[in-house]
Amino acid sequence: MTLQPPSVGYLGPPCSYSHQAALEAFDADTHCFVPQTTIADIFSAVESGSVTHGVVPFENSTNGSVVFTLDLFRACASTYPSLAVTGETYLTVHHSLLSSVSTSEIKDVKRIYSHPQAFGQCELWLNSMLKGVERVDVSSTSRAAQIAASEPGAAAIASALAAEQNLELRVMARNIEDTPDNTTRFFVISATERSTESREGGDKTLLSFTVDHAQPGALCDSLQVFKDFGLNLTNICSRPSRKRHWNYIFFVEFEGHADTENVQAALKALGRFTADMRVLGSYVNKQPKIRAEI
Amino acid sequence: MTLQPPSVGYLGPPCSYSHQAALEAFDADTHCFVPQTTIADIFSAVESGSVTHGVVPFENSTNGSVVFTLDLFRACASTYPSLAVTGETYLTVHHSLLSSVSTSEIKDVKRIYSHPQAFGQCELWLNSMLKGVERVDVSSTSRAAQIAASEPGAAAIASALAAEQNLELRVMARNIEDTPDNTTRFFVISATERSTESREGGDKTLLSFTVDHAQPGALCDSLQVFKDFGLNLTNICSRPSRKRHWNYIFFVEFEGHADTENVQAALKALGRFTADMRVLGSYVNKQPKIRAEI
Repeated sequence: MTLQPPSVGYLGPPCSYSHQAALEAFDADTHCFVPQTTIADIFSAVESGSVTHGVVPFENSTNGSVVFTLDLFRACASTYPSLAVTGETYLTVHHSLLSSVSTSEIKDVKRIYSHPQAFGQCELWLNSMLKGVERVDVSSTSRAAQIAASEPGAAAIASALAAEQNLELRVMARNIEDTPDNTTRFFVISATERSTESREGGDKTLLSFTVDHAQPGALCDSLQVFKDFGLNLTNICSRPSRKRHWNYIFFVEFEGHADTENVQAALKALGRFTADMRVLGSYVNKQPKIRAEI
Repeated sequence: MTLQPPSVGYLGPPCSYSHQAALEAFDADTHCFVPQTTIADIFSAVESGSVTHGVVPFENSTNGSVVFTLDLFRACASTYPSLAVTGETYLTVHHSLLSSVSTSEIKDVKRIYSHPQAFGQCELWLNSMLKGVERVDVSSTSRAAQIAASEPGAAAIASALAAEQNLELRVMARNIEDTPDNTTRFFVISATERSTESREGGDKTLLSFTVDHAQPGALCDSLQVFKDFGLNLTNICSRPSRKRHWNYIFFVEFEGHADTENVQAALKALGRFTADMRVLGSYVNKQPKIRAEI
């Protein structure tokens, strides 16, 4: 039996932002990196054990939550029961407008390919420079670059790295993102590993729950529990629960590790106000600067 | 001087779901309906007075918040200062797969056009029936139908109504949405009208605010105010504030009219924990069934 090296699934093709994030989070000398077609494919590969880890985008500082990823976390209880968040990594994202070498000027661009998140991060620039030009949604920015390389009049919003890797592409404009320090946060997911409490105590935990609709104010009561136990919230977002209309699943991230006594006691107290509570994982806080508390 | 009839801007072209919602909310005998190219164009038309009202999608029961609309509400203080929410309307949405009459079977579909929200609402069906087929994001489902009518091998996710209006189109599959009672909630916006308290007391109010990051637990304290004043929350969502990293603007909807003494007192109390608080409007609660409280 040969020992397989640990493997990391990311949203491909190679040279995507997800690939860059995976390279930030894992040592390339000791890990192999496996491109996946969709974020759902990463979740499935991790759950089935075909990769040991996955790297998935969670939120962007300009364009907010990645709802595809949230909806996969919503499905964890039923579809990905073994999977947990075991780490996070932050990537500063700079977008470029790339075109095939046959397209000479921005005004010749008739169609733009990119991932919906990248369109969202360049909205102001697009509205001022390419207003009314058709936008085509594809599964990743690197896929967009591949298409733009071969289609006359087409452009892609993607990493400048994609143009360095492909001689058919050139950079028409750099740093077209709406905010200069555009950053995407990725989660590391695994079905075999759990993070232990970091010695410095700099951990965060991600939870999901729905609230009991028989009790008005249940969301408020839930958040009060975090305050009572001194657990600072760092993120809260919601998605439709898909169980009934206008019923939401909440994702709450707070400072602390789920293995500590204090967090265990808080989760027990939280159980009084919530339903379907699930600890999605605890991981070392890798936020570059002090994160604002909410 | 001729008196102009009141006019309603909606996300066009005609026969879109937004058009149907506008027809639900306003009497077609006394109003004229004006298609707009983007949701931002509706906000601009309302603010400038070129239409008296606008109808904009806010959330869908399957696919959650319409982030484009939330981001325009975020810009109200700076860009649309006169605009307020004055009503809401609910539309049950059934999607169909439409193609040009020259495309005979689902397996012949090589490319699908639709609005990103509609793709999100048909994700399961698409993954089972048209996995791997390229998806092209366009500004509205009716625009998608127009394109599909003329492009061989193309299909659109749109209303079956679009096929009834266009002989070049046929319905390949009906009711392809992931949940059978897929409903979209729209807001009515106006720069000239304000709603007064309804006699039955069935009003809701939409607020936006950021929380003071010098105070940990400020979101919890904010929600506690609603509870203390007996105001049931019906929706909460967040978007990046775009003022600093990982800082969020919260949108909170609750039962009650902003003109009442109780809500006025609550808003005053809320001011202690929030910044940039803005009442986006009060309106009659038109929710078909009793809305779950959070």
